Amino acid sequence: MSMRTHYCGLTTEELLGQTVSLCGWVHRRRDHGGVIFIDLRDREGLVQVVCDPDRADVFAAAETVRNEYCLRITGLVRARPEGTGNANLKSGKIEVLAHQVEILNASVTPPFQLDDDNLSETTRLTHRVLDLRRPQMQNNLRLRYKVAMEVRKFLDANGFIDIETPMLTKSTPEGARDYLVPSRVNAGEFFALPQSPQLFKQLLMVANFDRYYQITKCFRDEDLRADRQPEFTQIDCETSFMSEQEIRDMFEGMIRLVFKNTLNIDLPDPFPVMEYAEAMGLYGSDKPDMRVKLKFTELTDVMKDVDFKVFSGAANMHNGRVVGMLVPGGANMPRSEIDAYTQFVAIYGAKGLAYIKVNELAKGRDGLQSPIVKNIHDAALTQILERTGAKDGDLIFFGADKAKVVNDAIGALRVKIGHSEFGKSNGLFDDVWKPLWVIDFPMFEHDEENDRWAAVHHPFTAPKDGHEDLMETDPGKCIAKAYDMVLNGWELGGGSVRIHRADVQSKVFRALKISDDDAKLKFGFLLDALQYGAPPHGGLAFGLDRIVTMMAGAESIRDVIAFPKTQRAQDLLTHAPSPVDEKQLRELHIRLRAAEPAIKA
Amino acid sequence: MSMRTHYCGLTTEELLGQTVSLCGWVHRRRDHGGVIFIDLRDREGLVQVVCDPDRADVFAAAETVRNEYCLRITGLVRARPEGTGNANLKSGKIEVLAHQVEILNASVTPPFQLDDDNLSETTRLTHRVLDLRRPQMQNNLRLRYKVAMEVRKFLDANGFIDIETPMLTKSTPEGARDYLVPSRVNAGEFFALPQSPQLFKQLLMVANFDRYYQITKCFRDEDLRADRQPEFTQIDCETSFMSEQEIRDMFEGMIRLVFKNTLNIDLPDPFPVMEYAEAMGLYGSDKPDMRVKLKFTELTDVMKDVDFKVFSGAANMHNGRVVGMLVPGGANMPRSEIDAYTQFVAIYGAKGLAYIKVNELAKGRDGLQSPIVKNIHDAALTQILERTGAKDGDLIFFGADKAKVVNDAIGALRVKIGHSEFGKSNGLFDDVWKPLWVIDFPMFEHDEENDRWAAVHHPFTAPKDGHEDLMETDPGKCIAKAYDMVLNGWELGGGSVRIHRADVQSKVFRALKISDDDAKLKFGFLLDALQYGAPPHGGLAFGLDRIVTMMAGAESIRDVIAFPKTQRAQDLLTHAPSPVDEKQLRELHIRLRAAEPAIKA
Repeated sequence: MSMRTHYCGLTTEELLGQTVSLCGWVHRRRDHGGVIFIDLRDREGLVQVVCDPDRADVFAAAETVRNEYCLRITGLVRARPEGTGNANLKSGKIEVLAHQVEILNASVTPPFQLDDDNLSETTRLTHRVLDLRRPQMQNNLRLRYKVAMEVRKFLDANGFIDIETPMLTKSTPEGARDYLVPSRVNAGEFFALPQSPQLFKQLLMVANFDRYYQITKCFRDEDLRADRQPEFTQIDCETSFMSEQEIRDMFEGMIRLVFKNTLNIDLPDPFPVMEYAEAMGLYGSDKPDMRVKLKFTELTDVMKDVDFKVFSGAANMHNGRVVGMLVPGGANMPRSEIDAYTQFVAIYGAKGLAYIKVNELAKGRDGLQSPIVKNIHDAALTQILERTGAKDGDLIFFGADKAKVVNDAIGALRVKIGHSEFGKSNGLFDDVWKPLWVIDFPMFEHDEENDRWAAVHHPFTAPKDGHEDLMETDPGKCIAKAYDMVLNGWELGGGSVRIHRADVQSKVFRALKISDDDAKLKFGFLLDALQYGAPPHGGLAFGLDRIVTMMAGAESIRDVIAFPKTQRAQDLLTHAPSPVDEKQLRELHIRLRAAEPAIKA
Repeated sequence: MSMRTHYCGLTTEELLGQTVSLCGWVHRRRDHGGVIFIDLRDREGLVQVVCDPDRADVFAAAETVRNEYCLRITGLVRARPEGTGNANLKSGKIEVLAHQVEILNASVTPPFQLDDDNLSETTRLTHRVLDLRRPQMQNNLRLRYKVAMEVRKFLDANGFIDIETPMLTKSTPEGARDYLVPSRVNAGEFFALPQSPQLFKQLLMVANFDRYYQITKCFRDEDLRADRQPEFTQIDCETSFMSEQEIRDMFEGMIRLVFKNTLNIDLPDPFPVMEYAEAMGLYGSDKPDMRVKLKFTELTDVMKDVDFKVFSGAANMHNGRVVGMLVPGGANMPRSEIDAYTQFVAIYGAKGLAYIKVNELAKGRDGLQSPIVKNIHDAALTQILERTGAKDGDLIFFGADKAKVVNDAIGALRVKIGHSEFGKSNGLFDDVWKPLWVIDFPMFEHDEENDRWAAVHHPFTAPKDGHEDLMETDPGKCIAKAYDMVLNGWELGGGSVRIHRADVQSKVFRALKISDDDAKLKFGFLLDALQYGAPPHGGLAFGLDRIVTMMAGAESIRDVIAFPKTQRAQDLLTHAPSPVDEKQLRELHIRLRAAEPAIKA
């Protein structure tokens, strides 16, 4: 005999007149007119259980139960009395008249109400098990599962094979910091937890598996920001013998299907495609939020000789940039809001926020309201107005500094205004899902501090056809076959066509000033594998945590992970990390360093 | 335009007359009558490509290619000439007349032939990428994927949800040795990699997820035996509100489906069920190979007063045991084979291997051939012959020692004889898949060395109903709600109903002499969670590596893992583990111990 015949939340009028056994938790208990009503909850939802005083044992048991008691109820499904239905519940038309109430487990009083929406993160993570009982968390983790399963079904149907790659792997101190695992058997040596299965998936392509995927944990020991975790989950894919275009088509199809089959949302088909240079030019970002209808106007070329030193200085600076950003209808923006934005852009390093309010173009300079316009000569002013297409009632903000500062500050301002009340009420924000491919990334960026070229993606990314020689002659002009999928200002995933020829791979290492010896030591196995007829291949990786966070409308990726770490990389539930026995350390051939003095003499 | 229109191995007569583009590797090149034939290989198999000398550029390219070159071929699918078909290939009726041969990548000469079946494991693991190109390895990893995907589909259809549990978790030094991960942020503290998600999956049941699964990596830092890896993959499942019987039914259904949908094998329905006590009694093993038609006969009770000291000594010993094992038709077994078995059982600690050949029962003692029979009195001899049911021409082997030695030695002998030529030709081996549930395991086993009780499964296993008090009064008699799924002598998986009440859990900790303080420190989060109306729950875990190894008929689990470690826990391909930079250690607040002298004074 089964403990349970149906889920609480799925007990509907189809079962009228039947005897059912339900298991779940006391969500709420009410005494009403001498009858006890229990809202019994399981993962599918609530059902109303009625305990009548004329069944003495049932009533006696019902009197003892409290919130979060775990019960088994056997009873009769009957219609609710006229007018007492609950349209919010699937079970809202029926109730269960209890014939038997079995207390499977009692509960002490929970430290908080499950429907309290104002819990601190510390409380929630400390009592994670109760926190996970909350409907929002139940929904988030079930959505996460559905997303992952839809991904698997899509990839399976397209011939991709899930192949597990090692968790105990080799430390290659490039990029982020590794988590290390001391080896007991090999004294003095360490494994690293993988930052990504990048090289293994490339090896699998060389090994003729043709299409690979894995939904797998990756690890980076970085100081945590709001949307980062020490361990995170990647949908990792790689394929042989497909062009960049084919790879992008395949995976935008996957994301489109996932959105359709989980949230019933139709993403555009095809996704728009934008070159990196255009994205940086118009939005100051390689992951622009396309819901925001604001863009940059390039002004660097016309500001070189204006009297306003902030503009002319930036325009003449190495890596300097001057842009305007037209805000339609912005002339009505109160001074206080402009001041707030000035403070906001300062976070990104901007030293001020110049603006022009366009009150009445017909009046010429007199129709413009601005602290800076007097120091801008006519030719430049004409260009500003023409290029931005400003009309009466508009506002133009300006950024002028190193290009990076301008892009970061005005890019952030763009999003800020778009999402503001002002932006929403002035039609500057289109509240839909706006996916986008950003392509044609540069291969290298110049690391000013160390005066050397660094890989924008990773050193296994292929250059565009015909760009191989630029790696030596003009690395800054060399474009990569790299692509990012962007959604509403978040990078969902990214990837590239990889280098499949050992000689090209060696050229990249040389461009990055990685010596042959060093390359051999760290990546010898890859260079070796490329020699045996490695196929053209490429792929990409999506961040599952981030995709689900967006889809769930959650505030933090911690809300879509069952047992996340805090920003101090701690698990408050199990109290990890923790000190270990000296014996364990000895077996691993390590010892703790003595605590270093807080201040060195 | 696509690089590839079809897979080589799937290019069949359905494409006759069509132009196709194929990508793959040169498996073999033959010059025959002035024409070059290339067997082109991709993951789906081989296709024959014909390069005619009347197409000069095609022929010139074909002349330069060598084994393992990666090619793109465009050409016409045409029927092979009469009598030259290859029935072993899906593409065996056709060939592709090359119009274009593009060398995508050259290959240096491989260090071995891909069809060489006598490669050392070191060679194979060092050149793993080429090793993985071998059809057997391709098939093994694709079978592994199919098994995992069938498991996912089954569990999805049954309402199980994949929920990821942490990889960076808390060290609880029980059972096997943990892999540790030093924390950078929390100086002097360590994470542990999970040995299993056991406690997290129980927490998920308390958190109302109802049905959970995960196919996940687990870690044990043990000295490796042939069938172990530092990291291994578990199909981990847990469910609430189901009885032991329901759980077993669910998961034998899963395994039955997996065998049917991957290998088209029908496993019995239902699986036989055997109590632990019976398994040990009849086969000396809790995972008996049921293909072998041999079993033990209990003789301990009748050997207490025989003159043969080996038997009477064992029969009167604390934890001693005497068994016979009838081998039908064994009287013809040559002396040399018996001697070989005597050496074999010595591996398991047996000091000898007594036997009786039953030549002719009608002759009484004269019809028995045995070195020991003269020291066995009539009553005991009668029991031996009656209980074993010996007939003329049979042989009886005996084991007499501590029960553990008898079980191990005669249990191993049973399998050895069953699998031998003798066993196979005498009908003692049934070459089919023989699954089995072993149930009713004891809760505790006595740890003689430390004179204390230890958990047979793990300390979260529930006792049988009514056995709770035995934990205090007679722990050895306490039976657990634990079950193992066994197939052909291998444990495929195992699990139990868990303890869902905090008071029962505390009793187990007390029985195991884990102090309240210690329990709280290590498992406080579990005890805490159990207080909030934890539901009845249970589950099990399967070893994916092992299941696939069996199904593939592979020799080692290393043959079903893409990038395994050696027995010294090393990755010969990437050279992990490896030394790391001093800077990395300093950031992790650890240092290496000085090498200890090889021999201490």
